[in-house]
Amino acid sequence: MSALQFSPDGRLQHLLTLEGLDRATLTALMDAAESFRTAPGTKPRRHDALAGRTVVNLFFEPSTRTRSSFELAARRLGADVLNLEIGASSAVKGESLEDTLYTLEAMNADVFVVRHKVAGVPERLAHHAAPQVHVLNAGEAHLNHPTQGLLDALTIRRHKPDFASLSVAIVGDIKHSRVARSAVQALAILGTQDIRLAGPKSLLPKKGELQGELYTNADRAVAGTDVVMMLRIQKERMQKADVPSAAAYFKRYGLDAKRLKKAKPGAIVMHPGPMNRGIEIAPEVADGPQSVIREQVANGVAVRMAVLKSFYS
Amino acid sequence: MSALQFSPDGRLQHLLTLEGLDRATLTALMDAAESFRTAPGTKPRRHDALAGRTVVNLFFEPSTRTRSSFELAARRLGADVLNLEIGASSAVKGESLEDTLYTLEAMNADVFVVRHKVAGVPERLAHHAAPQVHVLNAGEAHLNHPTQGLLDALTIRRHKPDFASLSVAIVGDIKHSRVARSAVQALAILGTQDIRLAGPKSLLPKKGELQGELYTNADRAVAGTDVVMMLRIQKERMQKADVPSAAAYFKRYGLDAKRLKKAKPGAIVMHPGPMNRGIEIAPEVADGPQSVIREQVANGVAVRMAVLKSFYS
Amino acid sequence: MSALQFSPDGRLQHLLTLEGLDRATLTALMDAAESFRTAPGTKPRRHDALAGRTVVNLFFEPSTRTRSSFELAARRLGADVLNLEIGASSAVKGESLEDTLYTLEAMNADVFVVRHKVAGVPERLAHHAAPQVHVLNAGEAHLNHPTQGLLDALTIRRHKPDFASLSVAIVGDIKHSRVARSAVQALAILGTQDIRLAGPKSLLPKKGELQGELYTNADRAVAGTDVVMMLRIQKERMQKADVPSAAAYFKRYGLDAKRLKKAKPGAIVMHPGPMNRGIEIAPEVADGPQSVIREQVANGVAVRMAVLKSFYS
Repeated sequence: MSALQFSPDGRLQHLLTLEGLDRATLTALMDAAESFRTAPGTKPRRHDALAGRTVVNLFFEPSTRTRSSFELAARRLGADVLNLEIGASSAVKGESLEDTLYTLEAMNADVFVVRHKVAGVPERLAHHAAPQVHVLNAGEAHLNHPTQGLLDALTIRRHKPDFASLSVAIVGDIKHSRVARSAVQALAILGTQDIRLAGPKSLLPKKGELQGELYTNADRAVAGTDVVMMLRIQKERMQKADVPSAAAYFKRYGLDAKRLKKAKPGAIVMHPGPMNRGIEIAPEVADGPQSVIREQVANGVAVRMAVLKSFYS
Repeated sequence: MSALQFSPDGRLQHLLTLEGLDRATLTALMDAAESFRTAPGTKPRRHDALAGRTVVNLFFEPSTRTRSSFELAARRLGADVLNLEIGASSAVKGESLEDTLYTLEAMNADVFVVRHKVAGVPERLAHHAAPQVHVLNAGEAHLNHPTQGLLDALTIRRHKPDFASLSVAIVGDIKHSRVARSAVQALAILGTQDIRLAGPKSLLPKKGELQGELYTNADRAVAGTDVVMMLRIQKERMQKADVPSAAAYFKRYGLDAKRLKKAKPGAIVMHPGPMNRGIEIAPEVADGPQSVIREQVANGVAVRMAVLKSFYS
Repeated sequence: MSALQFSPDGRLQHLLTLEGLDRATLTALMDAAESFRTAPGTKPRRHDALAGRTVVNLFFEPSTRTRSSFELAARRLGADVLNLEIGASSAVKGESLEDTLYTLEAMNADVFVVRHKVAGVPERLAHHAAPQVHVLNAGEAHLNHPTQGLLDALTIRRHKPDFASLSVAIVGDIKHSRVARSAVQALAILGTQDIRLAGPKSLLPKKGELQGELYTNADRAVAGTDVVMMLRIQKERMQKADVPSAAAYFKRYGLDAKRLKKAKPGAIVMHPGPMNRGIEIAPEVADGPQSVIREQVANGVAVRMAVLKSFYS
């Protein structure tokens, strides 16, 4: 998969996964994203790097947040954006994934931003894509969400630039989380050693599957860390994990002010959104001075602009 | 609520309700809207007042007509428009209203055009919005639809400019109508004394709740008026109001040529759409020479452009 | 219907059907489309012929492919595009078709691209449209899909320019196919004599309803042809046609390499998409050297640009 995403001359042709990327590539993308960040309330910087290009948001899972982020990123680079939300009800009437790709390519689509719950779909698209086409993974099964990993890395870097010395705790349903996987990959590439993955036992990955140490005790995982990244928990998953209620989950794994005090002073709090307030995270923490959650969203648009622009420069 | 919509320097920061606005503000918006009106078949005037701005249509109720009107208004001012239709099926997965706001603000959204069936939602958004953000109420419960009130006032002014001397009848399900409330507010601010609210008894507001005299007899309400504004009736509401059928409703409250003759010669006929032809209004009246119904739609785009532009001038 | 689509000065005011158009009109549209074709991977040519115009995609049937094609065509000509997908759930709350038209006209919509499963809807819209408005049929019942006919003609012309000498087989559910009807009309206007319509007996049109000879044997229909156009088959239709299974359909009517060999060497293979691979067409044929299926899609955007531009030049 990592080979597929490079063009013969070594450039990033697709962004399918962070796995296999090197530190220089991540750093260059984060640096480019910095140039697209705009203070809230100011007009976002616009470029014409994608003027005349067509970006297709090919979402097989509903998404308001990520789709909007990509749509704004592409438009602010001058692209035309086509939003295709293809539900289970099969808007394309049983057409194969490849035929959908070929059809849109024939309409001169240039970039496919794809979200799908099935593993391997972005790779399949990249495999069949025409040479001039770029595929951007916007969320794949529990496996990859590379622009999320990049925006998380950028957000961390702005507050804690020395990745090598960082302690990072990721708390929640690690097992099913593409956010966690992409964050761990980004951190590993950037040199972070101390990564802690915490959650109910049945929601942890297998030992060795991901870089990082496994914890079932959230307090111990959070203790002394620089970064606490909370994950969204789905109710059905809680029940399967023998957590009897949202209140019980919050008590054991939710981030409230008391638990956050176990982290280093000045630790930052992250969440990919959408948040279940009072379940994963206490409102006073989500809105508190250590939270960088809204900054993550802003960085998301900037990172997506950086990746899109990298395809055309 | 009326205090919230002004910025510290007295400018209109949000448009949540017409209540509490003064005649000068309404007049200025109507005057600005005049400059955006274009004859059918000519290219609409374009401005760049919102170039580089992002307008989010945040619709929690489906709407083709109002959403399209706002979308075209924003685009003709140069804005990027993001359409988010958030159904009961919860595209944002239980995220709180405030978090949806914060997320979109972090993506540099500038204006939120919001429609919601729950009272208070636009106000809540305005209350939590960042200082540079504008909230525009596009329909709130049975309470407010301020741009509808403005477009109705503009439409009336173009035909009957002396608001103080006007007689206006509003006929239908007044009780549940944000259209009626916003029209009454606009008319009251502009000095109209003779406002008549007519409908089946159970679909009238409580006495004194709205400015205007209550009628259960449509003929008497319409008699001698300059403006007859018909409201959309929902079938379920008819039944609860002991009106046995659409035909019975039409007979008692629908506007046909005969009933319209009771109004002044030259009276204008209005309807906010979508119309139930043959229930609230006879086709020959809807399409007749006294109807200004299509002009209302055209004025709707112009008024929305005026409000959007007022935020940036 | 054919009279309605011309303006008093003989220009194409609406495109409702190919029926009644002459060879010069079709040729001019195909020539214009040629100028909009762009090699895959190059930026599509852009024009500003529709700058400041508003194109409404008024789709009463869901469609990803055709809607996207029209959306990109309109945007590449500089138009604003409003996408309205109006389901059975009645986004417009029982508003009449005419009122939807009048409402959008009042918002300065210039072109209506309409798809509807009911026969006559595009014509009804054209009949009621204001003089400056253009209606473009994007799929009407089983009857008309004129831009599909045009793109098919253009695709054929690029490979087999002498329409008079062509043999064309159209295979599948002819009876319910607007694609087949529009293709037959285009071919007839352009002078093709040998048109063969093949399918299960119950899926063939009545004798004489369409120009062309009827076949129930696909091998015989395909034999010696220059063009083989396969149609999409719906499962429910198969069953009603006494074809017991998809496999049986494929055997009798599907196009595989062996059946294709019965056509002339160098015959081209067409399909309007979305394809049911393995039912109407074998993958090796769909992706083979004789297939022009993806070219059809590319020509679709070009043809739609040509039609839209013709309204404004």
